[in-house]
Amino acid sequence: MIVKEGPQERHYRTIWMEENTVKMIDQRLLPNQFSIFHARTLEETCIAIKDMTVRGAGAIGAAAGYAMAQAAHDARDKGTWFSYWMAIAENMIKSTRPTAQNLFYAVERVKKAINIKNFYNFTELANLARAEAESIAHDDEEACKKIGELGESLVTKLGWTKDKDTITILTHCNAGWLAFVDYGTALSPIYEAKRLGKKIRVLSDATTPRYQGAKLTCWELQNEGIEHYLIPDTASGYLMSKGEVDLVIVGADRIAENGDVANKIGTFQVATMANYFKIPFYVAAPTSTIDLKLNDGSEIPIEYRSEDEVTCVEGCVFDRNGKLQKMSVQIPPFRTSAINPAFDVTPNEMITKIITEKGILDPSQIKFL
Amino acid sequence: MIVKEGPQERHYRTIWMEENTVKMIDQRLLPNQFSIFHARTLEETCIAIKDMTVRGAGAIGAAAGYAMAQAAHDARDKGTWFSYWMAIAENMIKSTRPTAQNLFYAVERVKKAINIKNFYNFTELANLARAEAESIAHDDEEACKKIGELGESLVTKLGWTKDKDTITILTHCNAGWLAFVDYGTALSPIYEAKRLGKKIRVLSDATTPRYQGAKLTCWELQNEGIEHYLIPDTASGYLMSKGEVDLVIVGADRIAENGDVANKIGTFQVATMANYFKIPFYVAAPTSTIDLKLNDGSEIPIEYRSEDEVTCVEGCVFDRNGKLQKMSVQIPPFRTSAINPAFDVTPNEMITKIITEKGILDPSQIKFL
Repeated sequence: MIVKEGPQERHYRTIWMEENTVKMIDQRLLPNQFSIFHARTLEETCIAIKDMTVRGAGAIGAAAGYAMAQAAHDARDKGTWFSYWMAIAENMIKSTRPTAQNLFYAVERVKKAINIKNFYNFTELANLARAEAESIAHDDEEACKKIGELGESLVTKLGWTKDKDTITILTHCNAGWLAFVDYGTALSPIYEAKRLGKKIRVLSDATTPRYQGAKLTCWELQNEGIEHYLIPDTASGYLMSKGEVDLVIVGADRIAENGDVANKIGTFQVATMANYFKIPFYVAAPTSTIDLKLNDGSEIPIEYRSEDEVTCVEGCVFDRNGKLQKMSVQIPPFRTSAINPAFDVTPNEMITKIITEKGILDPSQIKFL
Repeated sequence: MIVKEGPQERHYRTIWMEENTVKMIDQRLLPNQFSIFHARTLEETCIAIKDMTVRGAGAIGAAAGYAMAQAAHDARDKGTWFSYWMAIAENMIKSTRPTAQNLFYAVERVKKAINIKNFYNFTELANLARAEAESIAHDDEEACKKIGELGESLVTKLGWTKDKDTITILTHCNAGWLAFVDYGTALSPIYEAKRLGKKIRVLSDATTPRYQGAKLTCWELQNEGIEHYLIPDTASGYLMSKGEVDLVIVGADRIAENGDVANKIGTFQVATMANYFKIPFYVAAPTSTIDLKLNDGSEIPIEYRSEDEVTCVEGCVFDRNGKLQKMSVQIPPFRTSAINPAFDVTPNEMITKIITEKGILDPSQIKFL
């Protein structure tokens, strides 16, 4: 993706690997500061996943793949007990974000790439791990590109049937290119439509408590020059009631066999409101987000995060030197307890279509993949 | 209501009048600072309503009544054109918050109290205005007390039928005593249940963009010693899906003849989720909130507020001297546009009962009041 920094433009992927260091756009600092975080070790990469320096389904998947490559590199250097060190690394990576399917998908892919080789040249195993990690990142990028192409036709056809000049798409959280290696999922069709000269307007849910919609989606859309409006999470139903929303597209963190979708907390409410108003509700996700081991959404483990994320809000202020600084403010009275589930599950019957790189599917078709 | 300030306890009403000054708890400063704002003139009272120094259905109504009393006091001193000055004041007051029915109700009540007198002793007219304003505040207090008694039996009977030790009530925004002269509406039954020794747990929606749930409801509940948890607006549907909510109670800013209810933005989504899960959804409001001139909710004017309320979040931080300071942080990138409707409308079919001081009603019974 091309990032505009003042007069400069430069191509970035959200996450990549150089030598044994995983480099990533530091998403904790956006939208105030664009900076690259260097995770030099397996442990640093795991912390970066856990504290959301890198977040979003595909980006977490790529990070997990790279973390496995870092682990294999370390194990090679230790010169002994290769599979023991890899098992420790696997547990460490898997314990970072329990809901994110792409994380488990990536760990399993690297494990499999190593295991199929029945010999003990550690250097070769480390090389295989690294190659597989790169392949995971590459596949993510390609899948998102394809999702953009497939989704664009769906989205603009809908606009055309409504006989509207500009169609308005509501999205929740951030499933743009920051959430993947590149392109994104929910936003990928929007970027594709823009490239084709079609008029799109986006309503971005703020997505409390962490405000990924306000901070990341608005930053991406501003960077892309797409008309957009930030709305409070409380306002999406009202704006639908006023006919202000033509369709909804969101991403996914895990999809069960029956087509139930876990995504950022609040998605379920948006889906329920869209259903009430018979507004199409699309999920866009690569097939790597599908977990065929789970029969339905009730089996998806839901991550609960720290209460502080609800009681404090992080934004930015100008300091006395006129420089932007990150600042966290306390909202409720001190000693207020909070509940902070990070994801919810949208039932399959509320989902119009799931846009994958393999085609646009009914939720009921997921089990045939 | 008894406010605890450290070891001290003192009785307060949310708003009252001394001589020609309207005094009110400054709700912009809570929960960090408890302080009384003095609105010495009609204009200051209008600004206090508009900038939400005082907010909440009944408290706005009382403020509007007192503002009319201030206007009559001023008109008396001008010694001429009494009804001309009152008409100007009326327009000024009515233009502060377009959705709040209690504001219009209070202005009309004071007008009527003055107009029925067919003579021109300005001092007597001013006294009549003041007496009527006090009567509006008193009626609000009494209505809320009665709503607490009626609502308590409804709420705890429901808990009893569920055979639960503690019942969990979800509320949105603040319809506690801060939103009225005293007692509150949605929270009044909870306070009454607590006084009767019954076990209640409250989930308080944060209520973005202005966080009245986090700032005001959590402050009130902490003050009252009632178990409560702050939840993000995005999480109420998920927590309902997990069986964590026994019932919902919210307040109202205007109720149409058919029982449609305008309340704080986000209420409609909470009602939709409660309906999806067949969880009882109650509205608690005095009859002064009912507007029989409107056939249904589509006729209720919805206030749109400043974009800044969505792009900036106000909280508090400790300054370098260890003192709490209000601080506003920017959330999305600068120059992000936002949409900020302050209220939405919940359709009557989603409302289980409306708890008024005149009884617990079906929405369809509103028109007979």
